[in-house]
Amino acid sequence: MLLETIRQANDIKKIDQKDYGQLAQEIRDFLIHKISVTGGHLGSNLGAVELTMALHLALTFPEDKIVWDVGHQSYTHKILTGRQDGFDGLRQFHGMSGFPKRKESVCDVFDTGHSSTSISAGLGLVWARDIKGEKNTIVSVIGDGSLTGGMAYEALNNAAKLETNYIIILNDNNMSISENVGGVSKYLNNIRTASRYLDLKEGIYNALRRAPRGDTLVNRIRRAKSSFKQLVIPGMLFEDMGITYLGPVDGHDMEGLVQVIQEAKRVKGAVMIHAITQKGKGFAPAERHPARFHGAEPFNVETGLPSRPRTEANYTDVFSTVMCKLGGRDERIIAITAAMPDGTGLKRFHNMYPERFFDVGIAEEHAVTFAAGLAAGGLKPIVAIYSSFLQRSYDQILHDVCLQNLPVVFAIDRAGIVGSDGETHQGIFDFTYLSGIPNMHICAPKNKWELSDMMKFAVALEAPVAVRYPRGTAYAGLKEYRAPVELGKAEWICREWEIALFAVGSMVKTAVEVRESLKQKGHHASLINARFVKPIDEEAVREACKEHNLIVTLEENVACGGYGEKVLSFLNRSGTCNRYLNISIPDAYVEHGNVELLKKEIGIDTDSIVERILRMLGDNG
Amino acid sequence: MLLETIRQANDIKKIDQKDYGQLAQEIRDFLIHKISVTGGHLGSNLGAVELTMALHLALTFPEDKIVWDVGHQSYTHKILTGRQDGFDGLRQFHGMSGFPKRKESVCDVFDTGHSSTSISAGLGLVWARDIKGEKNTIVSVIGDGSLTGGMAYEALNNAAKLETNYIIILNDNNMSISENVGGVSKYLNNIRTASRYLDLKEGIYNALRRAPRGDTLVNRIRRAKSSFKQLVIPGMLFEDMGITYLGPVDGHDMEGLVQVIQEAKRVKGAVMIHAITQKGKGFAPAERHPARFHGAEPFNVETGLPSRPRTEANYTDVFSTVMCKLGGRDERIIAITAAMPDGTGLKRFHNMYPERFFDVGIAEEHAVTFAAGLAAGGLKPIVAIYSSFLQRSYDQILHDVCLQNLPVVFAIDRAGIVGSDGETHQGIFDFTYLSGIPNMHICAPKNKWELSDMMKFAVALEAPVAVRYPRGTAYAGLKEYRAPVELGKAEWICREWEIALFAVGSMVKTAVEVRESLKQKGHHASLINARFVKPIDEEAVREACKEHNLIVTLEENVACGGYGEKVLSFLNRSGTCNRYLNISIPDAYVEHGNVELLKKEIGIDTDSIVERILRMLGDNG
Repeated sequence: MLLETIRQANDIKKIDQKDYGQLAQEIRDFLIHKISVTGGHLGSNLGAVELTMALHLALTFPEDKIVWDVGHQSYTHKILTGRQDGFDGLRQFHGMSGFPKRKESVCDVFDTGHSSTSISAGLGLVWARDIKGEKNTIVSVIGDGSLTGGMAYEALNNAAKLETNYIIILNDNNMSISENVGGVSKYLNNIRTASRYLDLKEGIYNALRRAPRGDTLVNRIRRAKSSFKQLVIPGMLFEDMGITYLGPVDGHDMEGLVQVIQEAKRVKGAVMIHAITQKGKGFAPAERHPARFHGAEPFNVETGLPSRPRTEANYTDVFSTVMCKLGGRDERIIAITAAMPDGTGLKRFHNMYPERFFDVGIAEEHAVTFAAGLAAGGLKPIVAIYSSFLQRSYDQILHDVCLQNLPVVFAIDRAGIVGSDGETHQGIFDFTYLSGIPNMHICAPKNKWELSDMMKFAVALEAPVAVRYPRGTAYAGLKEYRAPVELGKAEWICREWEIALFAVGSMVKTAVEVRESLKQKGHHASLINARFVKPIDEEAVREACKEHNLIVTLEENVACGGYGEKVLSFLNRSGTCNRYLNISIPDAYVEHGNVELLKKEIGIDTDSIVERILRMLGDNG
Repeated sequence: MLLETIRQANDIKKIDQKDYGQLAQEIRDFLIHKISVTGGHLGSNLGAVELTMALHLALTFPEDKIVWDVGHQSYTHKILTGRQDGFDGLRQFHGMSGFPKRKESVCDVFDTGHSSTSISAGLGLVWARDIKGEKNTIVSVIGDGSLTGGMAYEALNNAAKLETNYIIILNDNNMSISENVGGVSKYLNNIRTASRYLDLKEGIYNALRRAPRGDTLVNRIRRAKSSFKQLVIPGMLFEDMGITYLGPVDGHDMEGLVQVIQEAKRVKGAVMIHAITQKGKGFAPAERHPARFHGAEPFNVETGLPSRPRTEANYTDVFSTVMCKLGGRDERIIAITAAMPDGTGLKRFHNMYPERFFDVGIAEEHAVTFAAGLAAGGLKPIVAIYSSFLQRSYDQILHDVCLQNLPVVFAIDRAGIVGSDGETHQGIFDFTYLSGIPNMHICAPKNKWELSDMMKFAVALEAPVAVRYPRGTAYAGLKEYRAPVELGKAEWICREWEIALFAVGSMVKTAVEVRESLKQKGHHASLINARFVKPIDEEAVREACKEHNLIVTLEENVACGGYGEKVLSFLNRSGTCNRYLNISIPDAYVEHGNVELLKKEIGIDTDSIVERILRMLGDNG
């Protein structure tokens, strides 16, 4: 096994050139084997094996630096920098992250997770290098999907002025998580099939030289240099922006890659290497189903099928179903996703109403303002974006949707603790950033039926509204509680006395358990499903104050600007003297791992909550 | 006066073609005269007179629709849609807005204020039109400066798939508010001087036809259509993205413009008209000093000089000075602006340390992640972005800076009520969106000296920190209070009993007045300068609770997630029974107008605050 000889950075350079192919194969086998057990981003990593090896052959670590856009394709980089052993605990609680982490290795120079940041960060590192007078090579590796994000373009625009070396590798697999969209994608496609461009160049040269005054003309063309380059060089889009373009090159031809990286290192300025790769390369099921193997659950290596097939519906399924229903009822309903037709569950809507479905690419800002435009035009757009990615659209929600009070519905999946993707993907800030925005409404369902009811409520509201729900299995308890959803009205589940539990969304299930546990310990608790985070149901809080000594709010969001602080502010404004306890996520990033373990770690599991309530009662006692 | 005959939309069509020039002149005179009195965006409006007239000649309102990017160039549109009379109250309290407002006219279809949104919104309107089966023309007018914002590119990428008409007018004046930056700007410059391209095209055609097999070659070129277009068409960057490009055209040649708009209306798909305009056209001082006449204060029409020259330093001046000092002391200090070298006060830093100054264009997202890269590379970046524009960078602050706990300093100017720019520009959400982010620190100075001290503190902190200060004259009171700035420590200004006023930043000045007023009414108030919004000084609050019956917090931010809610949460956690009053901005957008009038309107002026405190004391008996 060659892989055994790779114990730290730069060890790859000791491998004999003739064995590169074997090492690549061993890395692929290792990745498939390990990810089949832990789950993880298989497809993008299989596609980047040779590219990463070539970078490690051409560069020296940690002196040289790579910024991995999104970062889920960095597994081979982790292997080649001495982190093979970490793969048994990949994405597990207290185990190795599935993304680059500066705290994990000196060879990880910039943490990533969201898309399209790598060129901005790379430029920062380049200018820091130059200002400090250091010499090293800095590379950003960005996928073609990430190029649909506007930030990448802002950065490319700024890369033009660079007069020292900086390498951008465009890892072009013609995919985001799903199919790529848009004009630039089409443009890259043209380059991929561009061999005729080069024939044409030769033909024109020759014809011109044979023509009367041909040489003069060729010289004129040379003077009008950028115009001429447009004819003969694919990648003119990037050249026009001031970036030297090299390519396209085969992203699985390791020697070719090493050569072009060496060539790129000699360029004074920003240079883009366009490498064509295949997502899932070398594992047939992943080649065939790239979306399914993007972020894979554990799977059977022989069949490619999930090891633990899902039996229960998750919230995404529920959303998927209700969207199809809504789409059938009202022709003004439009669905928008930012490169996540599968992940958001909108694929079925797409199949049923293709003319009312929009995948805008990894472009969350555009998605939201586009929705605002649709709404201003009299339609009812539903924007489905994960909680942590919707952070990208904060200003668009505030400035384009809510300022004009436009009826845009935000379907916010993956809200709360998401688990194995970790820090960059936790959806624990949305109540905060959305609550501060005037005209916004925010609700969260307690169970699967309520998500459906809330979506129906939301499209009927004629105002901006966010419906927020977590990753994973949809809660199927409390089926009998299905009072109509009314704006700003909470739902009383159990009426007792002593303690009032006001729980939001996913925390209703937890609160049911908390209530049981308190009962066993001789305490009585009412349970109220908050339903609305903005506006809160002041009436319900006021009512609860009369009959309860302790008001507890429970939410899967940071405390700042969340539901609890709104309830507390109301308690203060209305002058009640009830004791109040805020259960929410502490003011810190939450790492990766199993959701239940993480909740325990941060004190929002049933036992921790019961303990805190008892302590508070004891204080009072 | 032709202008008198323009009383409503489409009246311009009654004007005789020979009089277009005179009307343009009258509009210019009107704009110069009116803006010289009220202040406003002069340069961009003078540059867009003919362009707007041409649009109004070629289109019909309100059936056809224009989305104005940023929107400050929409004055001529306001004139031509019957709002001449509004100019006397332009940007005044309860007067006409300086931006498009749907509530102002049926001819304003989408509110704008921030940059680069117009293509996204335009596409939304286009798809809504098509889905509803309507027929009309939709136009987005976007400046070349706005094209440096990534969102515009996300939208262009999505415009490619359009199969029905949509017109983008690139209003290219080769300027953002200041000089333009980046590769695309350079690219547009090349087009501007591109007449030789067209000569070249003819030459190549002719040469090829005369060459052996020339016709075959021309045919091959026609087949390889996009490759050929690269040679003969300027604007290939846009063509590559799938947008039909027309231009460049003279943006002051009204008849040419009308013609090209008519031509553009026939294109099935997205079409860009590239119009070259001059900012400030027709008013010599504005042509010479475009940055100064971007957002002008009232000025003398003869001399172009401000009517009321500024005598007192504003916070921007203070920031400008301290940045120059800091830059001299520490070579790791880097200054970053997003197209606002003048507005942020960084021009002096630029002059002194050009190699450590970066204007990244209107690209707030890139600005922040670029800063994160610089910080990861060992430098000390200071990002100076106005409060409302920093909303664009929310995810980058959360995901790229704070997650890695990188020492980036955010200098947040124009925080709080900004006045005449109105709703889109009020900086009243930053405490909210920043407070929820782990690892972030937030402070706000009470006066000019404290801004200087806080900047020094901030660059020494080695962690993310935001220093937030308002537009306008820097408070020069309380000079004698200059205790060293310590992390999370408030500053006691006056110690009394009964009422404790915890005031943040700009509200310290107000609190001084509140305290005086309360004293006259027989009440005693202590005054504490909060200094830090995150973390709050719990010790100071605890101390205040002992000797005061009423705790009041004062801040120029919405309540949600602000300073007050943090204090109230602490009061609750620490179990105090003190009464508490939160003075902050109500949950609503704040319109344009004089800052003092607006503060009164929303109840954060001295009198309103005193009244609320007295009422609360009265309640308490």
